Amino acid sequence: MAVTPFSASLESLDVDPVFAVHRGGKIEVRSTIPVRDADDLSLAYTPGVARVCTAIADQPDLVNDYTWVGGTVAVVSDGTAVLGLGDIGPAAAMPVMEGKALLFKEFAGVDAVPICLDCTDVDALVETVVRLAPSFGGINLEDISAPRCFEVEERLRERLSIPVFHDDQHGTAIVVTAALRNAARVTGRSLGDLRAVVAGAGASGVAVTRMLLNAGIGDIAVSDSKGMIYQGREGLNPSKQALAEVTNRGGYTGSTEEALAGADVFVGLSGSTLPEGAVASMAGDAIVFALSNPTPEVLPEVARRHARVVATGRSDFPNQINNVLAFPGVFRGALDVRASTITESMKVAAADALAEVVGEHLSADYIIPSPFDQRVAPAVASAVAHQARLDGVARR
Amino acid sequence: MAVTPFSASLESLDVDPVFAVHRGGKIEVRSTIPVRDADDLSLAYTPGVARVCTAIADQPDLVNDYTWVGGTVAVVSDGTAVLGLGDIGPAAAMPVMEGKALLFKEFAGVDAVPICLDCTDVDALVETVVRLAPSFGGINLEDISAPRCFEVEERLRERLSIPVFHDDQHGTAIVVTAALRNAARVTGRSLGDLRAVVAGAGASGVAVTRMLLNAGIGDIAVSDSKGMIYQGREGLNPSKQALAEVTNRGGYTGSTEEALAGADVFVGLSGSTLPEGAVASMAGDAIVFALSNPTPEVLPEVARRHARVVATGRSDFPNQINNVLAFPGVFRGALDVRASTITESMKVAAADALAEVVGEHLSADYIIPSPFDQRVAPAVASAVAHQARLDGVARR
Repeated sequence: MAVTPFSASLESLDVDPVFAVHRGGKIEVRSTIPVRDADDLSLAYTPGVARVCTAIADQPDLVNDYTWVGGTVAVVSDGTAVLGLGDIGPAAAMPVMEGKALLFKEFAGVDAVPICLDCTDVDALVETVVRLAPSFGGINLEDISAPRCFEVEERLRERLSIPVFHDDQHGTAIVVTAALRNAARVTGRSLGDLRAVVAGAGASGVAVTRMLLNAGIGDIAVSDSKGMIYQGREGLNPSKQALAEVTNRGGYTGSTEEALAGADVFVGLSGSTLPEGAVASMAGDAIVFALSNPTPEVLPEVARRHARVVATGRSDFPNQINNVLAFPGVFRGALDVRASTITESMKVAAADALAEVVGEHLSADYIIPSPFDQRVAPAVASAVAHQARLDGVARR
Repeated sequence: MAVTPFSASLESLDVDPVFAVHRGGKIEVRSTIPVRDADDLSLAYTPGVARVCTAIADQPDLVNDYTWVGGTVAVVSDGTAVLGLGDIGPAAAMPVMEGKALLFKEFAGVDAVPICLDCTDVDALVETVVRLAPSFGGINLEDISAPRCFEVEERLRERLSIPVFHDDQHGTAIVVTAALRNAARVTGRSLGDLRAVVAGAGASGVAVTRMLLNAGIGDIAVSDSKGMIYQGREGLNPSKQALAEVTNRGGYTGSTEEALAGADVFVGLSGSTLPEGAVASMAGDAIVFALSNPTPEVLPEVARRHARVVATGRSDFPNQINNVLAFPGVFRGALDVRASTITESMKVAAADALAEVVGEHLSADYIIPSPFDQRVAPAVASAVAHQARLDGVARR
């Protein structure tokens, strides 16, 4: 009998509670109907199923009513930008995509299937997802590296008439916008009063910047590993060039720290480090979102010496800015009304709904709800569904 | 508010118990671990999950231990040959693939995901499944029309190191071989004593014929809609040409009925009709497997006037020859030992195990177990796993 070469190491790995939890996977497929006898089988499978197939062939939208398709999302990755780990490939990305599927179900009752693809070419990714699409009611793109992720999403949105949502971009943008709206309120300002610096011009940095611009932020400038992004900087890729054209009215051309002097808001999405002095140089009532995970750009206890509001991506500090506050409710709302797409205003509606859940208990340490606040997903879903109807993209 | 144009018709459709059973789909994704609080989330998702990703990046086979991949099968179709309905497309195929996923779980605890693809080109199908493959422990191909299905399966078997199994071919072949082995025993003969005629040269006809040849059937001849297949017939496609070279030692060149005169076995896999006179012309102790669904080539009460053993694909007659007797156990066994492929001898082992479940109660009306016989899937799985080890394709 062949013995797995890993059997010894598995036992030692499973001593680690993280590995023990992941052993055998975190999700399963379950039947929702009984198959106890030949009568059940003849209804659920042959010969009965043929009538359902024929009905769908005649009236294709019935696939949403008589299969799981209408309530099911593919969580699609190519494994090129997984967490802070980078390009680890499709197999190693699977624990994250499976975790995402778990969260979809637990937080919003959405059935989600992790799909890790063994290709990284934009054309190949787009074609593959288009071919898969009849099996799903929506596509959640995940952990695809920038700038390819922008083109993949854009082309899929053009080709498909179901929601396509790159969570690293839009999930992050929704949660940051909600948090910043409440942070502004706590400090008695509106978004239009604020000058922000975003560190990181990958998927999340680009999307956060675009959404904050749409939401009316006073000014915003973005940096990457080479410093601030500005018009005329050499070698910008198309997505950074587009950013340069609509950001950085202050004309900062140096480092993130230089731009931060006198700024109201810092949003860290880069995995970089923010020195205490840079936080100290910000304007009064500064707002610091140090969102890199697991290590924030600056630790909250340090940032709080100088900033009024501090948030991170971690659950062990106040104000956890986590995408799980957005994506389950966004897809739940979009699927509930069979939206053909997710519009910009549906994302804004999600951010507004998320900000409103905080309500009268708003404070510097409570600008965003807990992921375990049961009001979150229904509030986001309801707002997204309502906005889909207003935008004319709802199909029921 | 947009209203679905189908809301009225759904109510009327749901009066039909078949549609009521299929409403909303027949399967769901469920979590297998709790996510009650931030501690659970930090183990199942970030930051804990990063360690599992890193371990898999270092040691790729760990994906089978620490995700659901190792126990999960993709049920892949392009919707071109669904049941007897033909080319109805990917959406309309979904109820069948979802049903298959249901049966995988109910009968053998295999997690299965229905994937209906919006492409029919062989290259596109092969590339798409190769790209999807990191997400699954096995690929069950389903309802892809002949002759494309042969090339799709062959190329996927070459490219992938996980089990690839076209159920219309091999599932049918396993169950027919098991049933015929027992039918021969009932009538005091061995397979080598039998001359068989197979009506149908699609996926199932080709695979049944190949497996019966490998099992040592005396002689076998195959017909398609144009009559018997023989060497030198004009316009044979490559799979039929290959059949012509190894079958029909009797040199039949006319109709199925002509070849059937004096034959011992009829296997109907074509949706055609078999006149009573043709059954009457067969040899003594004739064996008739009229497997077309929902309408057998000849009704059992008619066939039984002349034949000793009669089987159909239907649950409302004795001897139901149904693929559900094979595919759940075949994949369970292959996944249990992480087989890199499904060999010919693993299929033979499955057929033998299935035949043996009948045991001492063997009779003309009981040549094959019921799909609800709980011994079936474990017996098939155990035989397949054992044979995989003997064949050196087991990886644990």
